[in-house]
Amino acid sequence: MKKILKAVVYGASGYTGAELLRLLHTHPQVEVVALSGESQAGKDIAEVYPHLRGLGLPRLKKIEEISLDGVDVVFCCLPHGTTQDAVAAVPKSVKTIDLSADFRLKDITTYEQWYGKPHSQPELQAQAVYGLTELNKDAIRKARLVANPGCYPTSALLPLIPLLRAGLISKDNIIIDAKSGVTGAGRKVAQNFLYTEVNESIMAYGIATHRHTPEIEQELGGGLLVTFTPHLVPMSRGILSTLYVDLKGAANVEDLRHTLLDTYQNEPFMHILPEGELPSTAQVRGSNYCAIAVCRERRTGKAILVSAIDNLTKGSSGQAIHNMNLMFGLEETMGLQHLAVFP
Amino acid sequence: MKKILKAVVYGASGYTGAELLRLLHTHPQVEVVALSGESQAGKDIAEVYPHLRGLGLPRLKKIEEISLDGVDVVFCCLPHGTTQDAVAAVPKSVKTIDLSADFRLKDITTYEQWYGKPHSQPELQAQAVYGLTELNKDAIRKARLVANPGCYPTSALLPLIPLLRAGLISKDNIIIDAKSGVTGAGRKVAQNFLYTEVNESIMAYGIATHRHTPEIEQELGGGLLVTFTPHLVPMSRGILSTLYVDLKGAANVEDLRHTLLDTYQNEPFMHILPEGELPSTAQVRGSNYCAIAVCRERRTGKAILVSAIDNLTKGSSGQAIHNMNLMFGLEETMGLQHLAVFP
Amino acid sequence: MKKILKAVVYGASGYTGAELLRLLHTHPQVEVVALSGESQAGKDIAEVYPHLRGLGLPRLKKIEEISLDGVDVVFCCLPHGTTQDAVAAVPKSVKTIDLSADFRLKDITTYEQWYGKPHSQPELQAQAVYGLTELNKDAIRKARLVANPGCYPTSALLPLIPLLRAGLISKDNIIIDAKSGVTGAGRKVAQNFLYTEVNESIMAYGIATHRHTPEIEQELGGGLLVTFTPHLVPMSRGILSTLYVDLKGAANVEDLRHTLLDTYQNEPFMHILPEGELPSTAQVRGSNYCAIAVCRERRTGKAILVSAIDNLTKGSSGQAIHNMNLMFGLEETMGLQHLAVFP
Amino acid sequence: MKKILKAVVYGASGYTGAELLRLLHTHPQVEVVALSGESQAGKDIAEVYPHLRGLGLPRLKKIEEISLDGVDVVFCCLPHGTTQDAVAAVPKSVKTIDLSADFRLKDITTYEQWYGKPHSQPELQAQAVYGLTELNKDAIRKARLVANPGCYPTSALLPLIPLLRAGLISKDNIIIDAKSGVTGAGRKVAQNFLYTEVNESIMAYGIATHRHTPEIEQELGGGLLVTFTPHLVPMSRGILSTLYVDLKGAANVEDLRHTLLDTYQNEPFMHILPEGELPSTAQVRGSNYCAIAVCRERRTGKAILVSAIDNLTKGSSGQAIHNMNLMFGLEETMGLQHLAVFP
Repeated sequence: MKKILKAVVYGASGYTGAELLRLLHTHPQVEVVALSGESQAGKDIAEVYPHLRGLGLPRLKKIEEISLDGVDVVFCCLPHGTTQDAVAAVPKSVKTIDLSADFRLKDITTYEQWYGKPHSQPELQAQAVYGLTELNKDAIRKARLVANPGCYPTSALLPLIPLLRAGLISKDNIIIDAKSGVTGAGRKVAQNFLYTEVNESIMAYGIATHRHTPEIEQELGGGLLVTFTPHLVPMSRGILSTLYVDLKGAANVEDLRHTLLDTYQNEPFMHILPEGELPSTAQVRGSNYCAIAVCRERRTGKAILVSAIDNLTKGSSGQAIHNMNLMFGLEETMGLQHLAVFP
Repeated sequence: MKKILKAVVYGASGYTGAELLRLLHTHPQVEVVALSGESQAGKDIAEVYPHLRGLGLPRLKKIEEISLDGVDVVFCCLPHGTTQDAVAAVPKSVKTIDLSADFRLKDITTYEQWYGKPHSQPELQAQAVYGLTELNKDAIRKARLVANPGCYPTSALLPLIPLLRAGLISKDNIIIDAKSGVTGAGRKVAQNFLYTEVNESIMAYGIATHRHTPEIEQELGGGLLVTFTPHLVPMSRGILSTLYVDLKGAANVEDLRHTLLDTYQNEPFMHILPEGELPSTAQVRGSNYCAIAVCRERRTGKAILVSAIDNLTKGSSGQAIHNMNLMFGLEETMGLQHLAVFP
Repeated sequence: MKKILKAVVYGASGYTGAELLRLLHTHPQVEVVALSGESQAGKDIAEVYPHLRGLGLPRLKKIEEISLDGVDVVFCCLPHGTTQDAVAAVPKSVKTIDLSADFRLKDITTYEQWYGKPHSQPELQAQAVYGLTELNKDAIRKARLVANPGCYPTSALLPLIPLLRAGLISKDNIIIDAKSGVTGAGRKVAQNFLYTEVNESIMAYGIATHRHTPEIEQELGGGLLVTFTPHLVPMSRGILSTLYVDLKGAANVEDLRHTLLDTYQNEPFMHILPEGELPSTAQVRGSNYCAIAVCRERRTGKAILVSAIDNLTKGSSGQAIHNMNLMFGLEETMGLQHLAVFP
Repeated sequence: MKKILKAVVYGASGYTGAELLRLLHTHPQVEVVALSGESQAGKDIAEVYPHLRGLGLPRLKKIEEISLDGVDVVFCCLPHGTTQDAVAAVPKSVKTIDLSADFRLKDITTYEQWYGKPHSQPELQAQAVYGLTELNKDAIRKARLVANPGCYPTSALLPLIPLLRAGLISKDNIIIDAKSGVTGAGRKVAQNFLYTEVNESIMAYGIATHRHTPEIEQELGGGLLVTFTPHLVPMSRGILSTLYVDLKGAANVEDLRHTLLDTYQNEPFMHILPEGELPSTAQVRGSNYCAIAVCRERRTGKAILVSAIDNLTKGSSGQAIHNMNLMFGLEETMGLQHLAVFP
């Protein structure tokens, strides 16, 4: 069967790159025609990722060695900071999905403030569409450049945005207590990500300073400030976000659940759980699903939501493919029908 | 060297029992003279816990087979519900430290409401002293019956109580997002605690219904209500509690840190971390330490505290031994000098 | 798209059942029309396995409630012992793949000896084909009843059989030191499979008594005896088998590698690794691949082989689907194109 | 209480250094007076190891800044290669225990062959005593320089040496299939030791090339060659070695067990398990114990032994302290009474 789309992956030697290749392998309409991996250029991808052996994938190259003639889509999995110019160099005829943080913040002043350097491509930034798939489909379908959301923001925004839009919860006092597996740090070789340092331990990090904070606040809108506390959990994949919200007016927990059920009723990857059920990251591991529970609090006027995603799939590469499917008018679930690998 | 105290452990076949035996093995003044383990009665403890082989410990018996003549202290590690009558049967001359929840709630109506049955020993309950060591030393020293605190309450109360007492934080809006290792469930054989179900997964549980909630609220006092959300983390030991509080009046984060530093300045097991440092459960694993960080939030008027303990040690058996040392006038650190086993 | 085959899964509430459903979900030609789960009958599969929510799968039933009219294939994931009669009750027109051990041993005396009771279906046993896919394709294609191999035997036989057939290794002194993840025990609720008992620990078990031993010996043939030592490793999935063999005559390590490369050159799921590379179970996790390394020993006359599979996929449900594809003349890789979920 | 011995730890920033400090903290007769940590010089040890906070330990220095006047013992935890000259610079009056591999191989040609460079201190090498505690006590007591054994050798030699000495097993065909936790690699920051690379995976490594091989062969003696295959297991601590041996003459498994029971009958840290029991690394985690099982094989003439140790304790720092106790005539168990931290 002739495949329709030719795709290139920049930064294929990172975990999000590898996850893209895993998912694209089962996508019936995408052929991967080139891979970049700066420090690994020249290698077979199987030397970098043994689980990708024998798939006929192209060797890793430097970006400048890759021709984009005839290419339909570039997935950009480069570290932030290096991404802006790489994306700018992609011809306008090639659609681009950027998995870094470089095009997520609409306000380049905010970008500079949180990332410590000026944005080098403000015009491109202005064209970028924030790719939170389920809640931004129209814009994504027409986009040339999609800024794929961060993993923590995905886990927090999917439950929160519909409730804020419906006026059911307050803009004040939103607390996001998020717990992530270690792949959130990518394949970065650093002491604090050694097995021996992470195993059998949990810790908070980046309190009040994590760069996903302004991204969450931008998408929630209205100038609100959230309290966002990420934690590192001894597991490879998964994000669980526990959200504490104040109910507005007469709103109750059932209103929240129904709003989420309505919003996501036709979405293939969204599971709003029945009352009494709580999600675990195990039930979405390796899949593009997001599971959300809405819970009663003992004190009137409060509610707790819990969401679970796989940070590398729904929180990154799976969502990127979902966005690509929209951008090219393909069936939304193509390449994404993997169920969670449990146990 | 002749040891001063004769101790009996009821319920030695559970994890808190085993942890007591591990710690008491290095206590210079305690001799363990009897062990109970109902379903395992007759066995050598090494058949139940191979790591306790060769220590010359007595065989497991049924409680009714154990004589308390000449015994100084009973550690009671029985499941809640079965504990009240067992403790009532201990002669008044024998000091008792109960590691179950059975004597923690002063109000027996609250007990009945959360535990689903009436308290059978209301008079004993009235004598029980809540054993949160650092904050209740005088009463513990004089106690005949100590109700050893729950693991989650220990992790939440040690940072919160001094701040509430000092009037630095509000009674409203206290959120305790707590993450526990699997030993919190004891050695209970149930599907949801199988390796394959817990590994590589995190989940919330018992939202708004966990039985440690009334215990926390009782000790914080003033009729306040907390939002307490426990989570199950794929690790054996450790609790990390992330606490969200509203500052009162002009109080700031430095005030909080100084109050905690002052409160715990002479405490051998309390570490109030310097600014910028965050605790991990790894740094207290297997030890009786509690590490606490006080963090600035982006929004004025809020602060975040993070505490780490080992649920089986500081959150249970270690704290019990600390209490015993106080009750018998021994040096506080006896049997508790184990540092964390890291990595 | 109309699907060709109607499948029934007996014992869908176990891990191999769940793994079958995960894989069949992406099989373009199989519709699952009924599920059995004795103790869970009446439940939605999502109550038993939340990761299987929303797939439109039938509710769990008791086997006797399931009609096999129009059914093409039954996958039988029942515990051994209960399987023989269940399989006997399947009409002859329905092909059956049994994932238990019940039809693997050709000699029913050996079965009785290792499983402690007589085989109740010796005639059926005589018709069963051992489903070690790559090495028994012709027979599997024609089979009505396939006895799907055990996980340990799969990991050991794929490297060993071609070498024995080629006369390159001795029948004496074969040692199989195998290491398995905990899913090898299924979803059995027992103390020794609790997270807290397995985590941060490795142990050997079943030395000289594991029931996969006669299965391995049967398939290696020639009356040989192997030394087989299984170990339990703190991970959910995966088997790594380290094989120690004596070279025969002038055979050397290169001869071994070339024989395996030749044997498996057209096999889509077999990776014979280049010299110097060693497999990890991570590189096959969740996939149907088997990776094998052939290694030089320091002493002339010896060689070491290492094989890695996912015990639930290649070692069980994936291999079962591979066998089904053969039995029905479908493309071999259908439903099995999942790459390993790494990391 | 005045402590008798002044100790210095070179290389305190590695895991074996940290483990020494953990154990020495409970040693009644040792005061740690200086710590070196080249790249971390100037730091408080709590910055490098938060679990060592608040113990009053000296700051990290460079070795050349440390005075050894009045020092009784130096523990040298430096990387191999850098150790020889550091040990040579220690005054002859100061006893030294080297935890690296630098003084373990008596034949400096073998050293050069396996470590790739000439030994710079052949005279010192000639004085070094191999510190396999239980089997070399007399020499250790008199030693000035002890070469502390490697972790794998410790786990293999303790069961094997008494059996070889007793003539019960053959020098041929000894196979050591060993499985280690990740701390065996120290705190080395490398991609293959990242949490995400190690977790949920097992692999063999260094087949036929691991540097502990000549050490094992030297101590077994008689010019024999062993087959030694190390594996990396997803856990922090522990080594399990599965040993395959040929019985000699009429020897049987009971003879083996009795020989080990006799050899180790008075040893406080050796557990020869009763028939039918198999050791796990969990039961020795964080302790100085070694547990050994002797198992029947199905084929006459063979036996299987399984040993479990904690690689950082019995396999390194615990054994070093045991050796120190012998060298200074202290009670053997001082500082080593920690039981395993289970679970």
